Amino acid sequence: MRMVDLIEKKRDGLELSTEEINFIIEGYTDGSIPDYQVSALTMAIYFKGMTEKERADLTMAMVESGEQIDLSAIEGVKVDKHSTGGVGDTTTLVLGPLVAALGVPVAKMSGRGLGHTGGTIDKLEAIDGFHVEISKEEFIDLVNKNKIAVIGQTGNLTPADKKLYALRDVTATVDSIPLIASSIMSKKIAAGADAIVLDVKTGAGAFMKTIDDSRELAKAMVRIGNNVGRKTMAIISDMTQPLGFAIGNALEVKEAIDTLKGEGPEDLTELCLALGSHMVLLANKAETLEEARTKLQEVMKNGAALEAFKVFLASQGGDPTVVDDPAKLPQAKFIYELEAKEDGYVSDMVADEIGTAAMLLGAGRATKESEIDLAVGFMLNKKIGDSVQKGESLVTIYSNSENIEEVKNKLYNNITISAEKAAAPTLIYEEITE
Amino acid sequence: MRMVDLIEKKRDGLELSTEEINFIIEGYTDGSIPDYQVSALTMAIYFKGMTEKERADLTMAMVESGEQIDLSAIEGVKVDKHSTGGVGDTTTLVLGPLVAALGVPVAKMSGRGLGHTGGTIDKLEAIDGFHVEISKEEFIDLVNKNKIAVIGQTGNLTPADKKLYALRDVTATVDSIPLIASSIMSKKIAAGADAIVLDVKTGAGAFMKTIDDSRELAKAMVRIGNNVGRKTMAIISDMTQPLGFAIGNALEVKEAIDTLKGEGPEDLTELCLALGSHMVLLANKAETLEEARTKLQEVMKNGAALEAFKVFLASQGGDPTVVDDPAKLPQAKFIYELEAKEDGYVSDMVADEIGTAAMLLGAGRATKESEIDLAVGFMLNKKIGDSVQKGESLVTIYSNSENIEEVKNKLYNNITISAEKAAAPTLIYEEITE
Repeated sequence: MRMVDLIEKKRDGLELSTEEINFIIEGYTDGSIPDYQVSALTMAIYFKGMTEKERADLTMAMVESGEQIDLSAIEGVKVDKHSTGGVGDTTTLVLGPLVAALGVPVAKMSGRGLGHTGGTIDKLEAIDGFHVEISKEEFIDLVNKNKIAVIGQTGNLTPADKKLYALRDVTATVDSIPLIASSIMSKKIAAGADAIVLDVKTGAGAFMKTIDDSRELAKAMVRIGNNVGRKTMAIISDMTQPLGFAIGNALEVKEAIDTLKGEGPEDLTELCLALGSHMVLLANKAETLEEARTKLQEVMKNGAALEAFKVFLASQGGDPTVVDDPAKLPQAKFIYELEAKEDGYVSDMVADEIGTAAMLLGAGRATKESEIDLAVGFMLNKKIGDSVQKGESLVTIYSNSENIEEVKNKLYNNITISAEKAAAPTLIYEEITE
Repeated sequence: MRMVDLIEKKRDGLELSTEEINFIIEGYTDGSIPDYQVSALTMAIYFKGMTEKERADLTMAMVESGEQIDLSAIEGVKVDKHSTGGVGDTTTLVLGPLVAALGVPVAKMSGRGLGHTGGTIDKLEAIDGFHVEISKEEFIDLVNKNKIAVIGQTGNLTPADKKLYALRDVTATVDSIPLIASSIMSKKIAAGADAIVLDVKTGAGAFMKTIDDSRELAKAMVRIGNNVGRKTMAIISDMTQPLGFAIGNALEVKEAIDTLKGEGPEDLTELCLALGSHMVLLANKAETLEEARTKLQEVMKNGAALEAFKVFLASQGGDPTVVDDPAKLPQAKFIYELEAKEDGYVSDMVADEIGTAAMLLGAGRATKESEIDLAVGFMLNKKIGDSVQKGESLVTIYSNSENIEEVKNKLYNNITISAEKAAAPTLIYEEITE
């Protein structure tokens, strides 16, 4: 088999066989196939796409390129949730304890990563003492005991995907639905998921800006999952404006606590119930979606979800009293209000730009070396569709610096106030199950 | 400027600016832009093409990536001829002395290369003593004196093209008209041509198999040439069957001598007159094509063309008496006839397969290291449209080995005899001047 012939085959729109895809991924991982041939191939894929079979084959070839986490010692169906990423997305912090309270095993491997705010681990580290440096054995024991644990990224998972992503990043071949879908799914599968619930964001703050692209990506991932024997479904949810009110690490922890109590923002609560219902159903902890939703609402009301969060924090060294006294979370030195300059209705809040403003404050990492400031961020006091009067606060800014002109300007430039009432955006567009 | 942004721009079908193309070619030549970004770009070009302006910019960027031959010390308009390559193509050997006899300066830089038979230099080396190891000064003096000289490839011409071609070869991006056209034109321009006559072959034995592809390539090259200030025209000529009768180095020299005397094969003679007329016209040695053709026919008849060939050979160490006594050329030990197995008409002679059969005999190089046998090859006794009787010779085989079963079988498999008379293929399809 010669790589040049396989590039030509894809270039000409033909389907690569399982053996051919394995040859490519094995050769790329071991270095026998050079970057310059793989980048030509990914550009050909950008133009010619991949069939469903090719996508499944590529996903599994990447899974098999490295270690795979064996979660078979954990009882029950391990359901993983994945979000394609947005601004102020606190769902993971809420969903973990929420479904764990119903006996769904949550064995979460999580990272830090770049972005507007930190990753799940950064957020949890806003809780004094909490850490994810636990052994794999301890991790499995904790999930069996408490139904929830979080571990840092461990082992050499999907090295082919890492190498391929780094290459795509510098060759303008990131924006390929089959490659994005295979990349995400390979990581979830290598991390041991039996079933996967996907939250595909759509809108200005999302990787996919249009509903059509989001649907295509969601379908691609759901089909890969189902084709390789992992029950997978996706929800397409709004990311034109940030989700919930909080953007920032400690602020999002506080918001997650509120939501677990049933006192969180309406949109965040609804999305958690929607995603959580599917997780409960896939884990066979309810017969129907309606039953799952009712049970989730119960554990919010009766305190069981909050209790699961406390047990989880304590079991990984965290201070569980934070849950009852959020003032123990890191606090910013300065609090400013972004006052509305006119009367009217909020008609737009550009999610990604507001996220970038949070990063300017220090809430997220611009480069791998950046330090995160866990205390800083925003609380949105208004969202799209809300009426506002001149002088009212649109956003409360939590900062450790007095120099916030740039941040304020960025917020003003990306929050539009109109004379006419604007409709709040749809929260959940579609559910994709096949 | 970042290469990744330029790849994305091309991927999205936008036009790269002159500065951007220069940045790419300079960076690729000096190694600051890696292969893996350039291969992604060439694959994007494969799908998205290049505008006329981009093609001209790419050509000149490659010309400027290395040395350029300065032919300004040669009087007159230096017209170069280039063929996209075929089987039994003896035109260069004929055209050089032919137009030189009319005062057109022929300053030919030539190579050896891979192929069915040798390059122009290999063929000329069938003449005892002939060599191309002359200095640049001697080369220029000879052209001024005799109007014709041939030098081996010298200097570091178009290093960007060499690097790019090697990369395209292993990344399935050879078959891109803008890249092929820019590659060919950059080499001609760097070699100092003021005007260029292109012979674009079409058919089974050509790189371009269809008339549409050949026309597209011809137009692409003609426009590049004219856009960068080199008067350029192209003839699209047949290569379904080999050109002329001879395939092999010494055999083609003999055929060139016959043609210079006006006694060559009809198709080779006609193509030389067509290409030569344009060369004479571009060199301002005639007012019209008709006048140019008449003059060329004159120098064939009156011996001036043959005399120019003799002077040329002698001036570079060759034995000019070969011209009057072709038996002095290398002779093969064995001569075989390929007898027709049935009565009928020749309806097909697959040029590239017949060329490969010649290479099997030793007439061409399969790899850079192969030695060429200058004596061996074929003389075609029949061509498409000719009637043939069982037992008549289709091809005379000149071999230095008695083991020619494979060669014979290849010839039989690629020469079709039909009951019905077949038409001879059109020799010249089109002339492209803009």
